[in-house]
Amino acid sequence: MKSVFKKSLSLTVLASSLLSLGASAAPANDPATLGQIRDSAMNSDWAYERLADLTDLVGPRLSGSVGAQAAVEQVSAAMRKLGAKVTLQPVKVPHWVRGEEKAEVVEYAGRPNGVTQKVVLTALGGSGATPAAGLTAPVIVVHSFEELKAKGAQVKGSIVLFDVAFDQEMADRGQAGPAYGAGSRIRTQGPRLAAEMGAAAALVRSVGGANYRIAHTGATGLVDGARIPAAAVTAEDAMLMSRLSARGPLKLHLTLTPQTLPDADSFNVIADWPGTDKADEVVIVSGHLDSWDLATGAHDDGTGVAGAMGVIETLKKLDLHPRRTIRVIAWMNEENGTRGGKAYFEANKDKLDKHFAAIESDEGGGRPFGFIASVTPQMVKYFAPLKTALDPIGAGVFQRHDQAAGADIGPLERAGVPSFQPLVDASFYFSYHHTPADTLDKVSPLELKRHVAVMTSLSWFLANMDENIGRVAKTD
Amino acid sequence: MKSVFKKSLSLTVLASSLLSLGASAAPANDPATLGQIRDSAMNSDWAYERLADLTDLVGPRLSGSVGAQAAVEQVSAAMRKLGAKVTLQPVKVPHWVRGEEKAEVVEYAGRPNGVTQKVVLTALGGSGATPAAGLTAPVIVVHSFEELKAKGAQVKGSIVLFDVAFDQEMADRGQAGPAYGAGSRIRTQGPRLAAEMGAAAALVRSVGGANYRIAHTGATGLVDGARIPAAAVTAEDAMLMSRLSARGPLKLHLTLTPQTLPDADSFNVIADWPGTDKADEVVIVSGHLDSWDLATGAHDDGTGVAGAMGVIETLKKLDLHPRRTIRVIAWMNEENGTRGGKAYFEANKDKLDKHFAAIESDEGGGRPFGFIASVTPQMVKYFAPLKTALDPIGAGVFQRHDQAAGADIGPLERAGVPSFQPLVDASFYFSYHHTPADTLDKVSPLELKRHVAVMTSLSWFLANMDENIGRVAKTD
Repeated sequence: MKSVFKKSLSLTVLASSLLSLGASAAPANDPATLGQIRDSAMNSDWAYERLADLTDLVGPRLSGSVGAQAAVEQVSAAMRKLGAKVTLQPVKVPHWVRGEEKAEVVEYAGRPNGVTQKVVLTALGGSGATPAAGLTAPVIVVHSFEELKAKGAQVKGSIVLFDVAFDQEMADRGQAGPAYGAGSRIRTQGPRLAAEMGAAAALVRSVGGANYRIAHTGATGLVDGARIPAAAVTAEDAMLMSRLSARGPLKLHLTLTPQTLPDADSFNVIADWPGTDKADEVVIVSGHLDSWDLATGAHDDGTGVAGAMGVIETLKKLDLHPRRTIRVIAWMNEENGTRGGKAYFEANKDKLDKHFAAIESDEGGGRPFGFIASVTPQMVKYFAPLKTALDPIGAGVFQRHDQAAGADIGPLERAGVPSFQPLVDASFYFSYHHTPADTLDKVSPLELKRHVAVMTSLSWFLANMDENIGRVAKTD
Repeated sequence: MKSVFKKSLSLTVLASSLLSLGASAAPANDPATLGQIRDSAMNSDWAYERLADLTDLVGPRLSGSVGAQAAVEQVSAAMRKLGAKVTLQPVKVPHWVRGEEKAEVVEYAGRPNGVTQKVVLTALGGSGATPAAGLTAPVIVVHSFEELKAKGAQVKGSIVLFDVAFDQEMADRGQAGPAYGAGSRIRTQGPRLAAEMGAAAALVRSVGGANYRIAHTGATGLVDGARIPAAAVTAEDAMLMSRLSARGPLKLHLTLTPQTLPDADSFNVIADWPGTDKADEVVIVSGHLDSWDLATGAHDDGTGVAGAMGVIETLKKLDLHPRRTIRVIAWMNEENGTRGGKAYFEANKDKLDKHFAAIESDEGGGRPFGFIASVTPQMVKYFAPLKTALDPIGAGVFQRHDQAAGADIGPLERAGVPSFQPLVDASFYFSYHHTPADTLDKVSPLELKRHVAVMTSLSWFLANMDENIGRVAKTD
C-alpha cells in the first residue's frame, strides 16, 4: 500500500509529509504495516553497520572515558542524519580508571624453589588500589557469605577468594539471567563484606561461562573508607588456588592500581521520532551506550543500542510515523552506577503518565524469540497482532512477568510504566559479557536483523495501540 | 593369575623378584595380562596426581626456565620412587624470555579524537624486540605468502599481519593435525619472509580454535641478524585490523621486549624399567616435559608425560617385567628447538638397531581411540591381540601411516625406528594449545586413565613381541 503511494508522489517535501500523516492515520497496527516493518528490518544492514562503527571506531566506552564521549557524538550524529530530534541529557557519571593488574601465588605447600604461579585477574569496577609495589597476604578460600563469616578474625589482613562457579547448565536451560544473578550477588556484595571483616583484598571467581582463562569484570559494591582492592580471577585461577589451598597455606602477591577520579560529565542520547495525534505520549526503546573497558561491548550493549537505533531507521525508510512519539535512548552509565537511568527518571518523574511504555534490550544479540512484558495479565490478549506479525521470524513468544525492565528503565517500571525487553537466547551471553572477548565478531548479522525487527515492531505497536495499556503494579 | 601368586607369596624381597621374573617369562602378550594392564590403568589416579603435581606445583616450564628445571627434578623423583633407573641426559637448550607485550591501533580512518584500539597479542618464541618504548608503523594485511610477495617494496618498514583463520571445521572432522599444520606453516615461516622483505615486525593470527580473545604463542623461524619482533594476535584482533584496513590505512604502536639469552643447561629425563631376556633392546614411551610459558601445559604435553610415567606405575603395581626395556622419556625443549630429541638421537645413533620401537604422545589428553603406527603394512596383523585388549575401552583402532612420530622421536623414525602415537580426539586440543588456558581443569581424569591404559598396553605389547617388528622405510 505504502509503496503505491510512494510511486505516485515524492514530488515535494510538503506533499511527502502530508502523505506520511495520511499513512499513519490509517489503522496503525494493521497486519500489512507490521509485515512491512518486519520485512524491512530483515533486509537492512544498517543496524549492523552502526554496531560496527560503534565497536570498531569507538571501541570500549566506560563512563567518563574518551570512548564514552565519542560514542555519544557518534550515535547523536547517526540519529540526526535520520532526521530524529536529538537531545543530549547531561549526566554526572563515576569515573573509574583501570590501572596495572597482576598477581602471583608466591607461597604454597610443595612449591619448588624460585617458582611462583601466575594468577590472571582483572580489577572490578570500583576496586580500591594496592600499594604500587603490591601487597602480599594469605589467601582464604570460601564458597559463601556464611563460610566467610564463620572464618571470623582469620579474615583480617587476608585476601578472601570467593570460589563460586557460574552455573552454565542453568544458562543452557534458558535461565541465564538467574544464573548471572546468583553469581553477581557474590561479586557485588562479597568484597564489601570482606572489607567489613578487615580483609586486605577480595577476589571473586569470574561470573560467566566459557573457560578460556579470561576474567570477567563488573561493578562491585565497595564504599568509600573501605575501598579494598577487589578483582575477578579466571575460573581456572580460582580452581588453582582452591587446589593449592587444599595442599596447605598459600600467599598471593597482588598488584591493582585503579583510580577513582572525580565524577565526569556525560550524557544520555535521546532521539525522538515524533508522534502524530498523541505526540506528547512517549514509548521509550533503548539500550545502554557505555560498556566495560576490556572490550568493545558488542553484545553488552552494542546490540541493544544498535537495535534501538534501527527502529528509527526502519520507520524512516518506510516513511512511517506513529501516533505516540517513539523515543530512542542510548543510556549512559548502566555498568557502574545507572546514573543515566536515574537522571532520566528524576527529570521526568512528573511526566510519568505520558510514558506509555518503555523497552530496553540488554541481554545481548542472541536469537530473539519474542518479548517479556510487565503488563497486567488482562492486557496480554491485545498483543495478538504483534505476535502474528513476528511468528514468521520465530519471534512471536509473549511472556508476562511482574518485572521486565532492564536496569536503566527500572525506575520507570517501579513507578508503574509498563516495561518490555526482547526475549533472547542468552545461553552464551555470559561467556563474553564483561570480558575482552565481547567483540563484533560474536554478533550474528542475521540475529541483529531479527533484533531490529522485534524492537521496531514492538515500538510501533505500542506507539499506535488504541487500548490504554494501563499501569503495572509497583514492585517495590 | 598374578593376584593368586601374589597372595601366596610377598614373603621376602628376593622371593618377590624371583616371582616377577617367573611371571614375565610366561606368555607375555597373553590376553589375561593385557586385560590386567588395562584394568589396572583404568582404576588408578596416579597419573592424574602426577599431572596435578606437574601443573599446579611446577606450572609453566619453558626451556631454560626455573620451572623447566623443577619439572626435571619432580619427574625424576617420581620415577625413582617407583624403582625405575633414572638418567638425566644433558641438553643445551634455547633460553628465550618473554618481556612486555602490548599494542594499539593508533591511526585509522574514522578514528575519534583521542581514541585508540587495543590489540591483544603475545610474542612468538624467538621473536626479536622492539625498542623499549615500542615502534609505530603502518599495518599491511595479507592472507598468504604470495600476497605478501606481491606487495613488494611496500613491505619495507611496515608491520605485516598474516590474517589466516584456523580451520576449526577441519579439526572437528578429525583432521586437527593437518589444520594446525596449515596454520603453523604461516607462523613459523611468515615472520622470516616478512623480515627478508624488510618488514618492521610481523604478526600472525593465532593458530588455533576457540575465540575468546586469547593469543596462541608458538615458535617462529626467525634467524639471527633478521630477528624482527613477531607476535600472534588473537583472532578477534586480526579481524579488527582487517576491518579497519578495509576503511583505510592504519598504524599500530607495538611493544615487544623479549630476550634471547645464552643457551641454558637442561636435561631429558630417562627412566628405564629394565627388560628381562632382551634387556638391551629398548621401547621408548614418551612425552615432552617443557611447555610454553603462558600456561601450565596440561594438555601440551603434561598428559603425554603423565601418560608415559603411568606406564611404569602400572607395571610396577602389577609386578610385570617386560622382555625388552621400557624407557620412559620426558623430553626437554620440544616447543622451541627439539634439542632433547636431537641430543638423544646423537647419543644413540650407533644403537638404533637396539631401539625396537618409539612412542610419543603429544596431541593432548583427549579421548584415545587407539594408535597410529609407522610399521610396515605386513606387520599390522600381529597387533590383533592388543586391539582386542583395548576394544573394551573403545581404544582398539590401529591406523598405519608412513609417519607416526611426534617431534622428539622424529629423528629415530626417520632413521627407521617404528614409531607410534595414541590416536586421540584432538578436536578441541588446538583451542587450548599454546594459550594461557592450557590448564589442569581441561584434562578429563577418565580420559587420562584411558591414555595410561593405551600407553601401557602398547609399551608392554611391543616390549614382549616375538615378531621382529622390522624397520620402517626412510621418510627423508
